[in-house]
Amino acid sequence: MSTPLVNEFDNWIRTRFVDLNTELESLYFAQDKKEQIQGVGEELKLALITEGDQFVQQLLHEGNTDEGFDSGFDLLGNVGFLMSASRRHEMDEKHPALKSASALAMQLGASLGVVPRFASAHLETHNRAQNGKYKTFTHLDDEKVFLDYNTRGVFGFIRASEALLHILPLGVSHPVTLDLLNTAKDALEKVVENNTALFNELDVDRFFYNVRPYYKTHKVGRHEYRGANAGDFAGINVIDLLLGLCRGNDPYYSQLLVDKFLFMRPEEQLTLRDCMRRTSLMDEFLAVSDEERESQWFKINLSAFLDVCEAHGETARQHHSQLISRFIESPAAKYELAHRQDMTASGPPLEVLLAALQKLHDLRTASYREDIQTRHQDVQTLRSYL
Amino acid sequence: MSTPLVNEFDNWIRTRFVDLNTELESLYFAQDKKEQIQGVGEELKLALITEGDQFVQQLLHEGNTDEGFDSGFDLLGNVGFLMSASRRHEMDEKHPALKSASALAMQLGASLGVVPRFASAHLETHNRAQNGKYKTFTHLDDEKVFLDYNTRGVFGFIRASEALLHILPLGVSHPVTLDLLNTAKDALEKVVENNTALFNELDVDRFFYNVRPYYKTHKVGRHEYRGANAGDFAGINVIDLLLGLCRGNDPYYSQLLVDKFLFMRPEEQLTLRDCMRRTSLMDEFLAVSDEERESQWFKINLSAFLDVCEAHGETARQHHSQLISRFIESPAAKYELAHRQDMTASGPPLEVLLAALQKLHDLRTASYREDIQTRHQDVQTLRSYL
Amino acid sequence: MSTPLVNEFDNWIRTRFVDLNTELESLYFAQDKKEQIQGVGEELKLALITEGDQFVQQLLHEGNTDEGFDSGFDLLGNVGFLMSASRRHEMDEKHPALKSASALAMQLGASLGVVPRFASAHLETHNRAQNGKYKTFTHLDDEKVFLDYNTRGVFGFIRASEALLHILPLGVSHPVTLDLLNTAKDALEKVVENNTALFNELDVDRFFYNVRPYYKTHKVGRHEYRGANAGDFAGINVIDLLLGLCRGNDPYYSQLLVDKFLFMRPEEQLTLRDCMRRTSLMDEFLAVSDEERESQWFKINLSAFLDVCEAHGETARQHHSQLISRFIESPAAKYELAHRQDMTASGPPLEVLLAALQKLHDLRTASYREDIQTRHQDVQTLRSYL
Amino acid sequence: MSTPLVNEFDNWIRTRFVDLNTELESLYFAQDKKEQIQGVGEELKLALITEGDQFVQQLLHEGNTDEGFDSGFDLLGNVGFLMSASRRHEMDEKHPALKSASALAMQLGASLGVVPRFASAHLETHNRAQNGKYKTFTHLDDEKVFLDYNTRGVFGFIRASEALLHILPLGVSHPVTLDLLNTAKDALEKVVENNTALFNELDVDRFFYNVRPYYKTHKVGRHEYRGANAGDFAGINVIDLLLGLCRGNDPYYSQLLVDKFLFMRPEEQLTLRDCMRRTSLMDEFLAVSDEERESQWFKINLSAFLDVCEAHGETARQHHSQLISRFIESPAAKYELAHRQDMTASGPPLEVLLAALQKLHDLRTASYREDIQTRHQDVQTLRSYL
Ligand code: HEM
Ligand code: HEM
Repeated sequence: MSTPLVNEFDNWIRTRFVDLNTELESLYFAQDKKEQIQGVGEELKLALITEGDQFVQQLLHEGNTDEGFDSGFDLLGNVGFLMSASRRHEMDEKHPALKSASALAMQLGASLGVVPRFASAHLETHNRAQNGKYKTFTHLDDEKVFLDYNTRGVFGFIRASEALLHILPLGVSHPVTLDLLNTAKDALEKVVENNTALFNELDVDRFFYNVRPYYKTHKVGRHEYRGANAGDFAGINVIDLLLGLCRGNDPYYSQLLVDKFLFMRPEEQLTLRDCMRRTSLMDEFLAVSDEERESQWFKINLSAFLDVCEAHGETARQHHSQLISRFIESPAAKYELAHRQDMTASGPPLEVLLAALQKLHDLRTASYREDIQTRHQDVQTLRSYL
Repeated sequence: MSTPLVNEFDNWIRTRFVDLNTELESLYFAQDKKEQIQGVGEELKLALITEGDQFVQQLLHEGNTDEGFDSGFDLLGNVGFLMSASRRHEMDEKHPALKSASALAMQLGASLGVVPRFASAHLETHNRAQNGKYKTFTHLDDEKVFLDYNTRGVFGFIRASEALLHILPLGVSHPVTLDLLNTAKDALEKVVENNTALFNELDVDRFFYNVRPYYKTHKVGRHEYRGANAGDFAGINVIDLLLGLCRGNDPYYSQLLVDKFLFMRPEEQLTLRDCMRRTSLMDEFLAVSDEERESQWFKINLSAFLDVCEAHGETARQHHSQLISRFIESPAAKYELAHRQDMTASGPPLEVLLAALQKLHDLRTASYREDIQTRHQDVQTLRSYL
Repeated sequence: MSTPLVNEFDNWIRTRFVDLNTELESLYFAQDKKEQIQGVGEELKLALITEGDQFVQQLLHEGNTDEGFDSGFDLLGNVGFLMSASRRHEMDEKHPALKSASALAMQLGASLGVVPRFASAHLETHNRAQNGKYKTFTHLDDEKVFLDYNTRGVFGFIRASEALLHILPLGVSHPVTLDLLNTAKDALEKVVENNTALFNELDVDRFFYNVRPYYKTHKVGRHEYRGANAGDFAGINVIDLLLGLCRGNDPYYSQLLVDKFLFMRPEEQLTLRDCMRRTSLMDEFLAVSDEERESQWFKINLSAFLDVCEAHGETARQHHSQLISRFIESPAAKYELAHRQDMTASGPPLEVLLAALQKLHDLRTASYREDIQTRHQDVQTLRSYL
Repeated sequence: MSTPLVNEFDNWIRTRFVDLNTELESLYFAQDKKEQIQGVGEELKLALITEGDQFVQQLLHEGNTDEGFDSGFDLLGNVGFLMSASRRHEMDEKHPALKSASALAMQLGASLGVVPRFASAHLETHNRAQNGKYKTFTHLDDEKVFLDYNTRGVFGFIRASEALLHILPLGVSHPVTLDLLNTAKDALEKVVENNTALFNELDVDRFFYNVRPYYKTHKVGRHEYRGANAGDFAGINVIDLLLGLCRGNDPYYSQLLVDKFLFMRPEEQLTLRDCMRRTSLMDEFLAVSDEERESQWFKINLSAFLDVCEAHGETARQHHSQLISRFIESPAAKYELAHRQDMTASGPPLEVLLAALQKLHDLRTASYREDIQTRHQDVQTLRSYL
């Protein structure tokens, strides 16, 4: 279901493109100031953009070939890989090859209903392996470690979200709801285990200097699009909303959703939209009448529910205090790069990003905050019923 | 999101309707020939149909109230409960109350895109509990036992199907595919455990005489619709198709799908349709080249895949040799009812149904058959690669 | 977006298949009893089924090729053409070639969400022309005349339905609603003109003996599917429902919809379903308050609305008293075939069908009927407001 | 299908809100420098924002009420009206009432899949009239004139687009394609007539000073959203793409689509996306073989196609040289406002916008341009075949 040209380009992305990036990374890493990459390996950079452009030109000319959504989405990923690598190697934004790549990316993005750049799905949940190898920017082990664990983490959240979604038609008092809550908890606990492994195995410097730079903000056409991050799938927000820890009428959270929607695949956008119109499980538990609270099911199901909230909070705590701290904050501080404009995937300066992530952390852990509304009090109320 | 009238009817279905059915069942069960129910409890039957009809008349008159899919689907379930109970109590098909109920059911079914009768989703995955109690026909413990375990079984298959669906974009060689295969296997093993518990706890006679009769074939408008059964959800067929044990171009299996589609909710119909256009995991494993079979991933992922097939086969084996045999075949033989026309949910005589189920069993277990094509040989081939 | 095999089969359907049917028709028509076709042209019949089967076998084997909905729908049409021609030539239902064709048709129908046979869309709205020629069964002029006008008629109804759909968000009192009502009326008047031309140009005997027989009921797999007719598109029912002349809670009409849904393409099913949850324009006009009836817009828009109802009624009158009468009733009577089982596309005996169509006629013309509810009185009421 | 609160807010928007804006406009217009509105009518402005905020607060608190898409979309329009009026009256962007309004708009926009502001559909195709009056900002006649004609124009383009969409499955050589092309042409000619009437009836100053300012760019949450314009519906681009005058791989045009998608309703987004994967009619005509060009259908259908292109070009010419010139360019020049930042709906300075619109004009009229690719040459080629 793809044209020969599309396949050739895919092949190039899976081989030569990876070789070139890897060579460049090894040059960069060999330097004292690993972040100063201007002037380093210029021929390799040129090869990358020139060879890539040959495919792009032909693809633009081949025009719309209507091979179905999956094929188009995959091609968008490949153009996106090329553009992100150009960005990572700090090539001139005005380079004509980037103009053509933008044109192709915009055509594809518009016709697919997603941002015109590569998104996390291209790296994780929709990154097809060939003979055991999925697409990466480089041959570096640390990129693989990062993606292997990320993908597992994402699927863990997705599994939890699927279990919670199945609860909606049953209601909080159904006997099988208990099973589904337990499934969700197990899945979230797997996420924590998995992230611990990532924390232990990933090399800080390699990740900081040679992997992360590929996930930066860059321009496509007239607009700047924030980078890919492991959170660009619906499942995590489905969990937030269905548990009730985050809410759609909270401007901080709805802004986050507004900014995120087009980074998800269309079917995920629909799932998440559907969740926004649902009553959360927390609100359902809070609405149980005094009398019904005496029923046998109540403490059993409520207790399982609070365990899920706890497990979800734990993933947030760990993400914040382990992953972000170790792999971003520390090296940024250590190497005094915290103020570089392009430090973060989403674009804003590091401290702004960190404050925003703290908010999210506090919502998910139902922590007490003076300045914003969390579910701290409601969780306390529910606990008191046990 | 429902009109007051819709809620009142729902309330009636959850209370008075259950009382009436329970009383009738206790009269029937007290008899020698428990299946001869004509003339027994006629006043109760009349009350049931007359009271129900009052709601139906008003609902028809209230007309289209556009309260959204979920509300309409729920209402269809309630009308369907009323019609199925009338059928179970062998009331005259030509009763005017059944005409009105048909009219309402057809309007709802047509506007929702499903059969105009209650389907399994109304009993299991979409049966909302209120204060711990979901909708049932009777107060009998055995109905609850049956539905509790059925619902758990269904969610087990669904969880397995979700894991397999996530593999599609990754391909069989992706490292995370291993995790997803293991998740599928675990879920299927839970189904087996769960069915064993059902086997042990369910009372044969109670089920045979007082529960099953509510799930019979009956007419709505001009057509006869087969009864509800626990298999009317997409997940089980998604597993069949994605594993590759059953195939869309097998006329036996495609007939089964054709007959089943409108018994599923629309979103499930879409999921299943989508699966029909996919390459199965088995075919992907068979297509691995000689050379690639030497790669490290191959034996690991293949072995996990064959375990999933085995687990899926085990659920079929158990369903056949335990559940069907104990709860349908044996009592039918014992009470010499095997030839009654309405013995089975789907309508055909028992021996025809059993032969069809045997076929399905043989497909899912990849057994050798002379007369039909199973994946027996292909599974052997794959095993030989381990 | 189709495999070579699919294209070859399409080519065969567009050439050799048409030749064979045409030859057979000319043999049949040369006879005294044109309807007695058993034993006539048996070699040609055999050639048709044998050659067709070769494609079907290969297509079944090629399996799921996932070339997108349009390609699959087109292929289903081609298999359907083959099966319908076999039916028309009264070949044995048990012929193994028909078994294979059934298998392919069921696989396609199930995966597409439509009946597993050719439907009107294959003949009319989705019948792609190549160098000016669309697909037909024969080379006969009268088949082309019939399809040309049918297709125009269908698009006329569709245009009217599109205009009415646009009114829904505006309401009956919006100034631009007047324009949309006039567009609908114009479109319906074009349908009448077009049907008059059909009435004048189509040869009764040719149509009766050589064209219609291809549109008969036949079996696919276990079930019998009624034949194709020019009414199998959503537009006509959208008009019925939005004008309010027919209603979803009328059991006659909801039965008609239930029977018709899967003969429509999925996107049309959705449109029609959506209409079923809307308030009709007639009900909106009836709900206008006494006071608002004094407003300037009221008489203007109401009068335009009643004109649309009138135009829609006129198409029904004409279909009934001209098309059906001249091309079906008369020849059936003349040739004493009225009692043949397979006289009608939908299966029932001619008089039953005619009575049903009379009902539909009376609903659409808002005629007075003692036995069923039409909008006769409501239309009178509205007229009295002018 | 709306909560009482939602209805009360709608009522306020339809009455008091219009009164307040009208009073303010009359104060502004009475001034010498009609564009200097700071300090004018401050109490009225305050009333507007304070009263509006009371509804918004309660709506935020009422939370997700899940009354269906249409109800949510309508509510988003109403919040959007409030924010746009605040923008028009140049109220402080940091006003807390605008923060709440943003929160509500983002929640709604995210859950609906559209921009979190009012869009053209709220003014035109989905602006429900009550007793003859649809929603407006003011009581001014010129606002009504502008919207009446805009709405008619939009429906004209939509009608043309619907006819073209129906051609896709038939192909350019089908006999009924001729009818559909003629329908498209008629509809476009109606657009031209309609725009001429608008040109003649609309008062330049009133439109410039009292109507257009409500359609400006403004912020919601963190982002700035361009204003509403009569072009925010899919139909116009469907025509562009299906005729082939504009193309998805043209970066100028794909940028335009990228920027426009979320200003359309979701169902329109899908239609437009689907068009992007289609072969244009122009490309189909160009692909006709030498031999087929001799067939009878070719000149007939081609000639009708070129007439549609011509009619579409004419609408563009008129929009450019009449509407934009008279109602924007001239007054901007006359009153020396051309350089004001907020002159245009989409934000950029007037001359930039005009250059962009010129490009669009040249694409649609297939004019010759040195710097960009138009279909000038291809249209010439086709003309030479007549
Ligand atoms: C020779 C010309 C025609 C004849 C003899 C004819 C006859 C019939 C018959 C017998 C049926 C009932 C089908 C069945 O259930 O067996 C039918 C249905 C229908 N026909 Fe025709 N037809 C003709 C042309 C047309 C045309 C040109 C249109 C316009 C599009 C049309 C629209 C419909 C519709 C909409 C139905 C479905 C029932 C309904 O909703 O009214 N027919 N026709
Ligand atoms: C007083 C009358 C009108 C004026 C002054 C006017 C002006 C404009 C302007 C300035 C734009 C560019 C918007 C921006 O990006 O800032 C625009 C866009 C557009 N207008 Fe108008 N317009 C008028 C009436 C109409 C009418 C009646 C239609 C017909 C439906 C129409 C169709 C469009 C379309 C389709 C676009 C989007 C760009 C495109 O695809 O062409 N306009 N108009």
